[in-house]
Amino acid sequence: MKRAYPPNMATQSLASHIATQPDSQDKLYKRVARRISELIEHGTLRPGERIPSVRRLSEREEVSIATVMQAYRVLESRGLIEARPQSGYYVRAKLWSPPPEPGKSQPTRSATRVSVNELVMEVLKATHAPALVGFGAAMPSPQLLPTRQLHRTMASVARRHSLLCNSCDIPPGNLNLRTQIARRAMESGCTLSPDEIVITCGCQEALNVCLRAVARPGDTIAIESPTYYGILQIIEALGMKACEIPAFPRDGVCLDELVKRLNCCRIKACVFSLNYSNPLGSCMPDAKKARLVRILAEREIPLIEDDLYGNLSHAPHRPKTAKAFDRQGLVLLCDSFTKTLAPGSRVGWTAPGRFKTQVEHLKFISSIGTAMLPQMAIAEFLANGGYDHHLRKLRRFYAEQVPRVSQAITRYFPEGTKVTRPAGGYVLWVELPPRVNSLDLFQRALAEKISIAPGPIFSPTKKFRHFIRLSCGAPWSEAMDQALLKLGQLIARMM
Amino acid sequence: MKRAYPPNMATQSLASHIATQPDSQDKLYKRVARRISELIEHGTLRPGERIPSVRRLSEREEVSIATVMQAYRVLESRGLIEARPQSGYYVRAKLWSPPPEPGKSQPTRSATRVSVNELVMEVLKATHAPALVGFGAAMPSPQLLPTRQLHRTMASVARRHSLLCNSCDIPPGNLNLRTQIARRAMESGCTLSPDEIVITCGCQEALNVCLRAVARPGDTIAIESPTYYGILQIIEALGMKACEIPAFPRDGVCLDELVKRLNCCRIKACVFSLNYSNPLGSCMPDAKKARLVRILAEREIPLIEDDLYGNLSHAPHRPKTAKAFDRQGLVLLCDSFTKTLAPGSRVGWTAPGRFKTQVEHLKFISSIGTAMLPQMAIAEFLANGGYDHHLRKLRRFYAEQVPRVSQAITRYFPEGTKVTRPAGGYVLWVELPPRVNSLDLFQRALAEKISIAPGPIFSPTKKFRHFIRLSCGAPWSEAMDQALLKLGQLIARMM
Repeated sequence: MKRAYPPNMATQSLASHIATQPDSQDKLYKRVARRISELIEHGTLRPGERIPSVRRLSEREEVSIATVMQAYRVLESRGLIEARPQSGYYVRAKLWSPPPEPGKSQPTRSATRVSVNELVMEVLKATHAPALVGFGAAMPSPQLLPTRQLHRTMASVARRHSLLCNSCDIPPGNLNLRTQIARRAMESGCTLSPDEIVITCGCQEALNVCLRAVARPGDTIAIESPTYYGILQIIEALGMKACEIPAFPRDGVCLDELVKRLNCCRIKACVFSLNYSNPLGSCMPDAKKARLVRILAEREIPLIEDDLYGNLSHAPHRPKTAKAFDRQGLVLLCDSFTKTLAPGSRVGWTAPGRFKTQVEHLKFISSIGTAMLPQMAIAEFLANGGYDHHLRKLRRFYAEQVPRVSQAITRYFPEGTKVTRPAGGYVLWVELPPRVNSLDLFQRALAEKISIAPGPIFSPTKKFRHFIRLSCGAPWSEAMDQALLKLGQLIARMM
Repeated sequence: MKRAYPPNMATQSLASHIATQPDSQDKLYKRVARRISELIEHGTLRPGERIPSVRRLSEREEVSIATVMQAYRVLESRGLIEARPQSGYYVRAKLWSPPPEPGKSQPTRSATRVSVNELVMEVLKATHAPALVGFGAAMPSPQLLPTRQLHRTMASVARRHSLLCNSCDIPPGNLNLRTQIARRAMESGCTLSPDEIVITCGCQEALNVCLRAVARPGDTIAIESPTYYGILQIIEALGMKACEIPAFPRDGVCLDELVKRLNCCRIKACVFSLNYSNPLGSCMPDAKKARLVRILAEREIPLIEDDLYGNLSHAPHRPKTAKAFDRQGLVLLCDSFTKTLAPGSRVGWTAPGRFKTQVEHLKFISSIGTAMLPQMAIAEFLANGGYDHHLRKLRRFYAEQVPRVSQAITRYFPEGTKVTRPAGGYVLWVELPPRVNSLDLFQRALAEKISIAPGPIFSPTKKFRHFIRLSCGAPWSEAMDQALLKLGQLIARMM
């Protein structure tokens, strides 16, 4: 039995691991299940191999028979193991294979006016209605976040720095927070000083002020196709035009196509999300990022880099940002704590390179400063080390959650459905059979109290009519499983 | 002695008043002093009349001789009473008379591009440097605000509604807060429902989204002259033009001039602050507000009403807003809690009338939502009644503080200085002798560690070169007195 735990994974036994963290019975079986599924995933237990018997695992790990049984049932229902009569449990010979992926996007070649705002707001209102099973909004459930710890930090900071917390902040924002952000930026390959950072009201304000700093009404902005609707709305509201660049679901924007567009259109700036883009889930390899930065630097074109999901790598370490390769101050990196820590606080930031002065002024003009107490509390939370531990947990959670939803889609959605395989973040971009109109599906799903994000809100010209985005930001539940089953039925009826 | 307390003021004796609120000796003498100064102010004790002797007042009010002596010394130093040898204390025959007021502003008649941003940001940076005696930033000192109570409320709300507080808000914002705002709007004569209100990141974001909802780049916006620099910066950043309307220091924008401009320029919208405008301190009488609303309604021109200082009336009740007279949904009322309660929270709001949908969308596009916990905490603070008590205290404070600073200006600044007499808010608009360049003065004052706001930042074309704005938002101190003395000396040297 020992062989099931190679030294690198079993230096701390599950029993001692559990012993150090007294847990409810409920969590115990989940941990047992995770441990076994990791062993399968990493190939330690191979398809067709027998896994430890219930009794032996229970003895070895000093947990109850019932706990192991429960864990095995979970693994069985997820299709990872199977029971063979009078023989025990085995790793399933044919593991689940993910559905096919969508191809490279094929947007129109010319720059277009954006007119997506009305539709986005309609979808958004519906999506945030209560009592829905929510795949629509790409928001993390606050249950997955260290909400109570953050609030305790907030109360403590407010007690200790009472008057400062109730003072008006002005740009560039709280120094402690900027210092923490600069330190953490090392992980994405950036060398930043606190002076290069401007705090904003969330990433959305950062994107706004950066775009206003580098372009004017009428200018053309290159975006990836599909792209986050919030960026489309900014471009539309500022009276700019969008030029969509085709993108691959795995490694993002097609650079050859980008070069072609740069050569024929007057592109004023690019807004790209390179790490686990929303909704495509693509992650541009580092070498390709370096090439992108070179291509733009040659033409002196600014890149607004939306790194909102960069910290949500499903692997233990996060990828680099394009900013890491920027030597000319042309990359304006934007990020926030909305997806990983504090959706309620609306604290974001930007490192806008050579555009720092304009960005700082525009931040002041837009909203003076950012709420002071959340800034100070987040700074303290980052400084005291709880954040890394939490991030690791969150990454592991999404690394399990995203394939789980993908698996359910394979099970419930009709033949011909294609799904992305993001290596980070928590959104899936789903291509349905061509005859399915995702705006209709959106309405029909709403009637069943299920929210989804229809494809057209991710395109300046309302394309992607048979695509949907499903967000997996909430803990898995029976209700979610049932909702995906229902969605599959609705889709089948529309074909 | 009884005669000094007419029935309407003396129904509750000072002694019993004090008895119900156990206070330190320190506060006691201040209350005695305030009581006497109110009697003088209201004419109960007239110039030349003898005021109660120290011993009799001490007996009558059951406070110590020392307390009364201290109070009388304060009143004497403020020039309200004088001691006559062997006779006692008398109300000074010649009371302090305020300095003359500036006249109506005389801006250029044509619409102009705004180019004030660089200068504003330079002034702003300097103004917020630490270790200054600050007359520059129009920010209330957090010491004057119920900061600790607000933070206690925040901690309590975070404990009770943990997950909700860490959820992402979307427009129109927290319902409890909108309900409280709608209730309080009755005091300014408005009948608003919570559905008519959109929460924003401070009043500045409200002004931004409202202006973007009603006008486009290139449009001309009517503003009062002088006007708050933040509005000028918004107009400049959005590529709009400004048309300055002359204003009277007492009752604000000159409506006859406004009509003339409306008839000759294509004015797309007005942005006016009608109650205790910043920096002029003017308050438009209600009948004039009604006429303004009629004039604009006839022409279907939206009015963005910045009511940031409306709650800071020096009288017990606040004036109405123009919104109170609006029957066509053309007034977009903007306000925040920055000046009265929570400068650190950046929570503002707007009631944008018929432009609600556009404003809500633009708020989403600008920054998605507003920080959740501050919204919920402010809603609870407003609901539980502490706010009214606090507002009354704050109004009384500024009602004393503003004339005190004005008095020091009379004492220390050279002949020819003119000062406004605002009936609310806490800024004074000071006209210096014409040869004084306020931008020079700003630099010289900074070198002496004193901050002021130079006149040119309040004009789109950098006029008002011999004007300064002095903010009285911090508690009076010896350092402030010395700083005003120093300022007076600097000015005298520049003549």
